[in-house]
Amino acid sequence: MPQVAVVTFDGFNELDSFIASALINRCRKDGLEAFITTPTPVVTSMNGVEVTGQRPMEFVTEADVVLIGSGVKAREVVADDHLISRLTLDPARQLIGAQCSGALVLSRLGLLDGMPACTDMKSRPFVEASGVTVLDVPFHAEGNIATAGGCLSSQYLATWVMTRTVGEAPARGVLDYVAPVGENKETVERALRAVHTGEAALR
Amino acid sequence: MPQVAVVTFDGFNELDSFIASALINRCRKDGLEAFITTPTPVVTSMNGVEVTGQRPMEFVTEADVVLIGSGVKAREVVADDHLISRLTLDPARQLIGAQCSGALVLSRLGLLDGMPACTDMKSRPFVEASGVTVLDVPFHAEGNIATAGGCLSSQYLATWVMTRTVGEAPARGVLDYVAPVGENKETVERALRAVHTGEAALR
Repeated sequence: MPQVAVVTFDGFNELDSFIASALINRCRKDGLEAFITTPTPVVTSMNGVEVTGQRPMEFVTEADVVLIGSGVKAREVVADDHLISRLTLDPARQLIGAQCSGALVLSRLGLLDGMPACTDMKSRPFVEASGVTVLDVPFHAEGNIATAGGCLSSQYLATWVMTRTVGEAPARGVLDYVAPVGENKETVERALRAVHTGEAALR
Repeated sequence: MPQVAVVTFDGFNELDSFIASALINRCRKDGLEAFITTPTPVVTSMNGVEVTGQRPMEFVTEADVVLIGSGVKAREVVADDHLISRLTLDPARQLIGAQCSGALVLSRLGLLDGMPACTDMKSRPFVEASGVTVLDVPFHAEGNIATAGGCLSSQYLATWVMTRTVGEAPARGVLDYVAPVGENKETVERALRAVHTGEAALR
């Protein structure tokens, strides 16, 4: 069963970690499972919510998919050599994604060399300063690496993970279920369009 | 400063509690604040995530806004007389909203007498069995009471709270910030349209 590590640092944005994990966990019957993965046993969100990690940081080495969440301390994370050294990722074997300021972490890990990325408006100057071109779109993927920008695009990052691991049909089922009542079709199509566009983009 | 209790039971759906609270907390500079409010010090989500409550259940009596989150144990909640007795709400003074299966709780509290409600597909038969007409729309409000259906409509419930407490301009700012990059205008307009339509609906 493919396992997804949703890496969640202190100061995390609830939207980024929980939209991705909650959508992905709706594929559990299809064999896909997500876990809030944290560097310390408990992390506190940007709004003061204390969450107990479901997996320790070391889980990223065995996970099949690693998503780096976003938060108000991303710049502290990338400046922390010890913390960064615990993020041993393998883009040949793993799907790797980043939400908003998570792009800073992927850049720090050298995983965005030669590819542009998506991030949020606040993180943009820092991602650019790290040498990465930032796109004006919500989602971009090349091979096994994807980035998403704007909190609610975390549903697109989740959609990418679901389509790449268990297929488009389960992804459609999840999006249909979580959609606002009466907006099912447009919610499904919007997410799939964002992912397909972001995967197909010419540079 | 208006305070919002996001009532979160054991077995809660992360999307429902955290999308609402994270959006509303972006209005903190405008004087609006949300707190995860729980019946026990720690609650565990439907996906096994342990979260420490920010406020005890008794906070609902002093909060200006109370949102009832959704989860897999809503039917146990409404069957628990002691738990229900701790939810002393006052629709004359408070804004009261429910997400998905939260409508069952509002129905149990007698707060949906004479008004229809929104809920999710799974909760629908139970809400109907409680005597409430369920609408095929994502959001409906009458006076100080609102319901939303479909996990991602939690952004509409949050938009209703923001517009009713601090106004439309801050709500637009929040929606613009959390929107997927490049989808800002449509995200803002979709949410405001859902709320305005749900407030204006004739029955």
